[in-house]
Amino acid sequence: MGEFDLIDRFFKRPARRADLGIGDDCALLSPRPGHQLALSTDMLVEGRHFLNTVHPARLGHKSLAVNLSDLAACGAEPRAFLLSLSMPRADETWLQGFSQGLLALADAHSCELIGGDTTQGPLNISITVIGDVAHGQALLRSGAQAGDDIYVSGTLGDARLALEAFRGTLGLPEAVFELCRQRMEQPSPRVALGMALRGIATAAADISDGLLGDLKHILSQSKLGAQLQVSACEQLLACRGDVALSEQWLRTCVLSGGDDYELVFTAPVTRRDAVLAAAHASATAVTRIGCITAEPTLLLLDAAGQPLANQFASFDHFAQD
Amino acid sequence: MGEFDLIDRFFKRPARRADLGIGDDCALLSPRPGHQLALSTDMLVEGRHFLNTVHPARLGHKSLAVNLSDLAACGAEPRAFLLSLSMPRADETWLQGFSQGLLALADAHSCELIGGDTTQGPLNISITVIGDVAHGQALLRSGAQAGDDIYVSGTLGDARLALEAFRGTLGLPEAVFELCRQRMEQPSPRVALGMALRGIATAAADISDGLLGDLKHILSQSKLGAQLQVSACEQLLACRGDVALSEQWLRTCVLSGGDDYELVFTAPVTRRDAVLAAAHASATAVTRIGCITAEPTLLLLDAAGQPLANQFASFDHFAQD
Repeated sequence: MGEFDLIDRFFKRPARRADLGIGDDCALLSPRPGHQLALSTDMLVEGRHFLNTVHPARLGHKSLAVNLSDLAACGAEPRAFLLSLSMPRADETWLQGFSQGLLALADAHSCELIGGDTTQGPLNISITVIGDVAHGQALLRSGAQAGDDIYVSGTLGDARLALEAFRGTLGLPEAVFELCRQRMEQPSPRVALGMALRGIATAAADISDGLLGDLKHILSQSKLGAQLQVSACEQLLACRGDVALSEQWLRTCVLSGGDDYELVFTAPVTRRDAVLAAAHASATAVTRIGCITAEPTLLLLDAAGQPLANQFASFDHFAQD
Repeated sequence: MGEFDLIDRFFKRPARRADLGIGDDCALLSPRPGHQLALSTDMLVEGRHFLNTVHPARLGHKSLAVNLSDLAACGAEPRAFLLSLSMPRADETWLQGFSQGLLALADAHSCELIGGDTTQGPLNISITVIGDVAHGQALLRSGAQAGDDIYVSGTLGDARLALEAFRGTLGLPEAVFELCRQRMEQPSPRVALGMALRGIATAAADISDGLLGDLKHILSQSKLGAQLQVSACEQLLACRGDVALSEQWLRTCVLSGGDDYELVFTAPVTRRDAVLAAAHASATAVTRIGCITAEPTLLLLDAAGQPLANQFASFDHFAQD
């Protein structure tokens, strides 16, 4: 199977919303009038972002999901994506599974594969996703205001639990492991919530490196600080009722777990009803976990309102260098 | 040096033409009114697309050049690009050279780095480039007409000669080797020519896998054939006067060399003056090498007009599978 056969067989479909899809030197895409394009790219490497045990369909799903999560954090509507794929050999079974998982999620978000590149090399998946958003409506990290509430979508920390179970650091009951593994391997990008929060949220970021690390991006770009209710965060582990964890592990998972692909966002206190309506409209749980402060520090508070030491590091690909 | 320090130090610069550059979940870009976006992506893997002997600044240049070449083939004007970079470690000397070569070419084309991703892993460079072109003006592979002339820009085959010298298959005089190595490591994307050919060329493609292979894309998408003057192609090796090559090697290099990053394009016989004016305006040599035929086969003709056997394979990353 040659390079072009491979593309035709597993990835090429007729252009739908794009003006020109796969098959020329470039794809062509027309944004809707009055809209800006939102663009983001994420690269997934075996052993860093996924284990070699992952089912190819789940990997296809995750590869696009982590990119869609960036569009969600901007409130953009997905339009199209490009896929660059390096792999040791053209394995048809793997490609069948990978493309099926990838394109199923793409279809669910009307996000069209419009171009790409395939080459031989160590397994590496690089996707660039393109969405659009009405001019000036994008949610940015820099818009938080002192006094705003801080919210997080969905659940936190379960993906990290699965990773620790794979590593052998923690033992999990089989059913809990499966739930956590699902969260790690098949995250749900919060695209509908992000779009519903336009005009309501003042700032947003997606949580890929851990809640604290990604919240810090909002704080540094908004030049503000925050107080976080750690007890509220601890409730966000989906499997919390089914597993006995030390307080330290629980906090590590929810505060700096990584691979959550939830949204952390801020909104004025006066918009609490609007936030709940956006959550309802997008069928996505949101939890209020703290507030933005003028003092530019991040303070973690326990259930009694006392400050905790913040020793939770977010994930950094080159932290050891 | 952490991931975010690395981005700040080597890659982050203030947004200029983009609405929002590096630092948020997405970049924001507004196309010019009446324009379509042209998008393309190319992934470069060590050992496949470059040798580990290449200077990092040349690699930075080439990584963007091969992407700009796709925009050139569509006649699009470069706007922005995203870079995903996987590397074994954050080597400051390497990053300094790579980013310098990359951003120098980006500046030369007013093509802004608006986002990206960095991660640890085997060296892999994935770039997505975005240009724009007035609606309906893009040069496509599918537009050739029977009777059109076929042209190629610049020179062909020198990059392949350098590769064969690196492989030890061919010996080259030092000065010739340096010229060929320059062509292999620092191709010049024909962006100005591509833009000048809008409204003149009927079809275009960039030559990355070899002239015949990329011309075949035009032929198959235009559902036509071609007659090619092999003797005209043989003149296109830049170093032809300085090296003694067998006829077979000469033809292999110019017809299916790979890594040329020139344009092959078609235009009506009545537009010969316009093609020459576009070449002049963009300071890029173009050579007429054949014509498009209604008969859907690719015929290679020798200097006497006699057909040659076509045993020249274009490059295919998975041809062995």
